[in-house]
Amino acid sequence: MNKPLRVAVTGAAGQIAYSLLPRIAQGEVFGKDQPVILQLLEITPALKALEGVSMELFDCAPSTLVDVICTDDAEKGMGDADAVFLIGGMPRGPGMLRKDLIQKNGPIFRGQGAAIGAAASKGVRVLTVANPCNTNCLVTQFHAKGIDPKQFHAMTRLDHNRATSQLATKSGKAIASVKNVIIWGNHSATQFADASRATIDGKPAYDVLDAEWLRGDFRSTVAQRGKAIIDARGKSSAASAANAAIEHMQTWHHGTAEGEHTSMAITSDGSYGVPEGLICSFPVTVKNGEISIVQGLELSDWDKENLQNSVDELLSEREAVADLLK
Amino acid sequence: MNKPLRVAVTGAAGQIAYSLLPRIAQGEVFGKDQPVILQLLEITPALKALEGVSMELFDCAPSTLVDVICTDDAEKGMGDADAVFLIGGMPRGPGMLRKDLIQKNGPIFRGQGAAIGAAASKGVRVLTVANPCNTNCLVTQFHAKGIDPKQFHAMTRLDHNRATSQLATKSGKAIASVKNVIIWGNHSATQFADASRATIDGKPAYDVLDAEWLRGDFRSTVAQRGKAIIDARGKSSAASAANAAIEHMQTWHHGTAEGEHTSMAITSDGSYGVPEGLICSFPVTVKNGEISIVQGLELSDWDKENLQNSVDELLSEREAVADLLK
Repeated sequence: MNKPLRVAVTGAAGQIAYSLLPRIAQGEVFGKDQPVILQLLEITPALKALEGVSMELFDCAPSTLVDVICTDDAEKGMGDADAVFLIGGMPRGPGMLRKDLIQKNGPIFRGQGAAIGAAASKGVRVLTVANPCNTNCLVTQFHAKGIDPKQFHAMTRLDHNRATSQLATKSGKAIASVKNVIIWGNHSATQFADASRATIDGKPAYDVLDAEWLRGDFRSTVAQRGKAIIDARGKSSAASAANAAIEHMQTWHHGTAEGEHTSMAITSDGSYGVPEGLICSFPVTVKNGEISIVQGLELSDWDKENLQNSVDELLSEREAVADLLK
Repeated sequence: MNKPLRVAVTGAAGQIAYSLLPRIAQGEVFGKDQPVILQLLEITPALKALEGVSMELFDCAPSTLVDVICTDDAEKGMGDADAVFLIGGMPRGPGMLRKDLIQKNGPIFRGQGAAIGAAASKGVRVLTVANPCNTNCLVTQFHAKGIDPKQFHAMTRLDHNRATSQLATKSGKAIASVKNVIIWGNHSATQFADASRATIDGKPAYDVLDAEWLRGDFRSTVAQRGKAIIDARGKSSAASAANAAIEHMQTWHHGTAEGEHTSMAITSDGSYGVPEGLICSFPVTVKNGEISIVQGLELSDWDKENLQNSVDELLSEREAVADLLK
């Protein structure tokens, strides 16, 4: 039997975690032969509800679940963690500007980062799901002393999946037939969903679908999808966000398929003119846990403009938390 | 590629379905190479929220998902269905007696049964999750004209899993080391969680754990677990119920492992003195979709008394819906 992996999850009594945790416990992320210990972190008032979640995880009787630890102590939650899902954060309240949200969340992620640096395994892999996830990731990374910055990602897999399914639906083809969409930039309304390298049943998406739609409604539908879900369901996306978090971590663990890439928000190395150090979504391939940005893609002026627009937003977000990055 | 399976789910905008549907769409029940069409049934006021659920299912971009149909028309929802999860029902309100609950639910399941008989595939497999699930199953079965009664089950897998994890926790052993607990009777507080055939790491549970505990607190903890979850979480079990529904249908589809049984509430053939025709939980093995009650187990007087107590409740529930079974 493999040594158990320690998986820390923040916001563990919330809706996204409620969809995520049983699937981790059942071995969906790390494999059916990989035991896991779940380390669930919540704020103190949510500890009772968290105990209920822990009971339900045992009631799934998953063969890979070794133990569940419930705590409001960040260092205990992150103790020896091999993987971390940062899901908990301050949600956007009525009338709150994005800048306010960023500034409210900054100190939370400074704390999480410090706890990761102090207590997690040195090889820990951290996925930030809580919004604004790119900038929360930046703050976490900065404060996680002693951990390689490359080990911190933010999640654009939900956008990637949304883009994939939009292309399938529009073309009337199976979801599995759509490959290689790209999400560039920030996980926000400025993101750039790019179908220029996407294929549908092996054919370029631009040969199958209308270019005007691909450059217009496709992009805005993907970017505004979160709001459309809230309008319909009356609640924000939880199951699909959890699903994307599972798939992001699965891909990090098991790699991308030959000839395919996915989208991950990772630390920019300057590729495609994105300033070094920003947490930006790129097309990436993954092998043996190493992430490589897909290189050599030709970007049109229109592509560059779209990417720059999102990068500008990332820069302004970084500016809003500048005092937390010193 | 296999022909898609049509999977109907009622109460599809509710909490249990929200945990269930993404996992079905990802191929967890019928396999990663088995395409599925999800047929989601809800009451009219919930159709908008259901649309949001459908959007999120597509946003998971699951490779096995072919289509999602949302409807408030039972026959459309059950149309050509190969598998049905009956999750929607009238919940128990404050001050409502169990008998009232049974009588409120009866007509709902008469309607579901009629729709299954009229529209579903003749080989359909129906799992009743909504409580009182044994008696709801009985009503459904009665009204599903032209479908073999054996194709209707009620769910005690959640109780089975709870019992398994209680034995693991108490003995300090891995969940995977616990085999062959039995849930007898009704999915209610009268159920009989029986550890007399259970093994822990291959040893009889009664050799590993205290007999008094196994005959006392173990049983009551399993039977009262639903209430304990509500007390902690402030909401009823959804993720663990969905997980159990997945596992019940998985087992029906893929079978039990050699030397192992599970618990399913199925139509009694008179085994162990349970009146023929009652929907009662038994230890069963499954092979090629055929369910066999494990035969030849010696029941002590105490065992028989416990089983009879639950059977008596099932009989009184049947009496409460007698006018729906004519």
